Amino acid sequence: MKKSVIVGQSGGPTAVINGSLYGVAAEALKKNDQFDHVYGMVNGIEGFLNNQVLDLAKIQESGELELVKTTPGAFLGSCRFKLPEDLNDQVFPQLFQKFEEMNIGYFFYIGGNDSMDTVSKLSRYAAKTGSDVRVLGLPKTIDNDLVLTDHTPGFASAAKYVAATVREIAIDASVYDNKKSVTIVEIMGRHAGWLAAASVLARKFENDNPVLIYLPEVAFDPDEFIEKVKTAMETTPNLVVCISEGINDGNGTFVCELASDVGVDNFGHKMLTGSGKYLENLVKEKLGVKVRSVELNVSQRCSSSCLSGTDLTEAINSGAFGVNAALAGETGKMIAFTRTSDAPYTLECTLQDVNEICNKEKTVPLEWIINDGSDISEEFITYARPLIQGQVDVPMKDGLPNFAYR
Amino acid sequence: MKKSVIVGQSGGPTAVINGSLYGVAAEALKKNDQFDHVYGMVNGIEGFLNNQVLDLAKIQESGELELVKTTPGAFLGSCRFKLPEDLNDQVFPQLFQKFEEMNIGYFFYIGGNDSMDTVSKLSRYAAKTGSDVRVLGLPKTIDNDLVLTDHTPGFASAAKYVAATVREIAIDASVYDNKKSVTIVEIMGRHAGWLAAASVLARKFENDNPVLIYLPEVAFDPDEFIEKVKTAMETTPNLVVCISEGINDGNGTFVCELASDVGVDNFGHKMLTGSGKYLENLVKEKLGVKVRSVELNVSQRCSSSCLSGTDLTEAINSGAFGVNAALAGETGKMIAFTRTSDAPYTLECTLQDVNEICNKEKTVPLEWIINDGSDISEEFITYARPLIQGQVDVPMKDGLPNFAYR
Repeated sequence: MKKSVIVGQSGGPTAVINGSLYGVAAEALKKNDQFDHVYGMVNGIEGFLNNQVLDLAKIQESGELELVKTTPGAFLGSCRFKLPEDLNDQVFPQLFQKFEEMNIGYFFYIGGNDSMDTVSKLSRYAAKTGSDVRVLGLPKTIDNDLVLTDHTPGFASAAKYVAATVREIAIDASVYDNKKSVTIVEIMGRHAGWLAAASVLARKFENDNPVLIYLPEVAFDPDEFIEKVKTAMETTPNLVVCISEGINDGNGTFVCELASDVGVDNFGHKMLTGSGKYLENLVKEKLGVKVRSVELNVSQRCSSSCLSGTDLTEAINSGAFGVNAALAGETGKMIAFTRTSDAPYTLECTLQDVNEICNKEKTVPLEWIINDGSDISEEFITYARPLIQGQVDVPMKDGLPNFAYR
Repeated sequence: MKKSVIVGQSGGPTAVINGSLYGVAAEALKKNDQFDHVYGMVNGIEGFLNNQVLDLAKIQESGELELVKTTPGAFLGSCRFKLPEDLNDQVFPQLFQKFEEMNIGYFFYIGGNDSMDTVSKLSRYAAKTGSDVRVLGLPKTIDNDLVLTDHTPGFASAAKYVAATVREIAIDASVYDNKKSVTIVEIMGRHAGWLAAASVLARKFENDNPVLIYLPEVAFDPDEFIEKVKTAMETTPNLVVCISEGINDGNGTFVCELASDVGVDNFGHKMLTGSGKYLENLVKEKLGVKVRSVELNVSQRCSSSCLSGTDLTEAINSGAFGVNAALAGETGKMIAFTRTSDAPYTLECTLQDVNEICNKEKTVPLEWIINDGSDISEEFITYARPLIQGQVDVPMKDGLPNFAYR
């Protein structure tokens, strides 16, 4: 008997999380001789528990699925729902009973670290109970912090957005080039500095901005920072400094915490804001120059204007690969990327044990962080440059990007 | 004897201020039978006083001029230099002596209000002293606040950036659509709310975001605001509110001043920051829902990814029109836009007395601001929609926009 597919999205959105969804949906709908229905769960596992599902064949028939491909955010809606650690918890039989009622044989979850935790638990529960539901994870995070994969879908488009925007901000900051100024750009990244590191791609010539780049992987010292800024302004009077939101003193205190209290989200992560603002005030006080801070904010993960063609293609491919892996009997795996060459850039999809991925964090290699923690090495550039190649023509209507809505 | 042309840029940059520069340069260089040299002044009138000029023919020969067209920022560099009110000041003969030494017969200044003040003073000084140097202004400001012109180059690309970005932020904010949230987007505009008003273009369906839009033209009442937010969340649980940075109490106190002290720039303008942050804290305190504020910041004026094709074409045309107007003997004028039809949208360049423009400010008509100052009327949409039409393919290199550098 043909089984149905269900796919869900979880965690923070990216510019290509819907590309992965499109990849799963289009491939599964194409193979309708092998599958019964192709469902999307609305608001992830949390919505699924409340019976919120939709039929993706209908989305395809209406023509919306093509728009989904280049729509930012999570078309299906997302959630931040952590399954209990205890596999004896009642939520597990509840979920698997729903799978049975809906004839679901294939479960795909698109997300980051916490979502892979869900994939891990569901696949372990399936193994424990002898269920034949196959559970696969599709990576997604702008943070690029998943292990066992060259990179994660979503990172490249965010990196392209960061690099392009920092280049524009540097140009904007230099229009009064007879004056001195400092611009501090705060980039997403709590514990892993991949995205802030991508700002190095904005540089076009020697001493071009951003001259200084700080990541959370290396302890941040405010006094050394001020000295570096002072020196850098001698060659680049309109200085742009890029920082990860998560820069910290190396002992667990975030720079923004030096200024104000912060809350925690429901995974216990600290909610950050304001490291850029803190440094803005510090530069003003210590150096007395014109200074501004810019927080790139959510556009890093939801801008469709800087979609990387490479990223979108890989996201779609990972979805299609996942469907075929599930058909081949795979479960408890994440679809990962293995780079086979830098130049020309080539990549293949592989399968990795999701239990080895969830709840781990891949940070930027320390040897790629140079100049006392204030710069990024050529190795990173070799790694990241291929990822931001290629443009995507987002469908336009009335002068604005035309997105899909449920 | 053929005379030379000089062109400068002043004030804050826009995404198409270099389009206007391109228009002047390309047209003047094309008509090399009528002109001697075509110079650019570096850092506006301030740099010119320090003999900082460059030969735009060389920029064209190197192929860079084509890149200038789609480069944000001010290619020539900008300044914020206000000429003295007293035409007897020694700076005027100093400037005109330089014009004579360089055989300059045509002076173009691309800028906003304060730059038109420079054009006014120079043309009045020329008239007073019998100089035949022709002085023309080319409008430029994302604020769209110049009188006697339908709109200003730069506004449309900024409006397109705002509308597209707000649409993306709204999608991003709605991924957890089973939860309630408020997102406050702070948009540039001190006294004129044109750019914040443009966020209305992001709406695609009934109750779509941004549901609430606040401009500086109408007095802002925090209590009424909280009531509106509460009501709006009943139909749009993930609410996006757009505000001008300059929203105020109607008696000259900016909302952000309710929270903190502010400085002034060297034209005596108040330097604003933080109205969005202030309202974020207010919503948190009064309504206890998840709330975030996003400051769109300098990308509004320097993003090349959302260039309006209409805007860029009009900027280039205004430059070319200016060159021909100067040849025809015009001086003391600003190149303005007169709309001849909304549908189909048609526009022509006209000349307006710069003395009637400088130091005046055009705000959004009060009848276009509806629902007790919390929304924008259909008339504004009819006005603004044609301006954001058309895409621009920015030259790319290594996956990033390829800009021109001096």
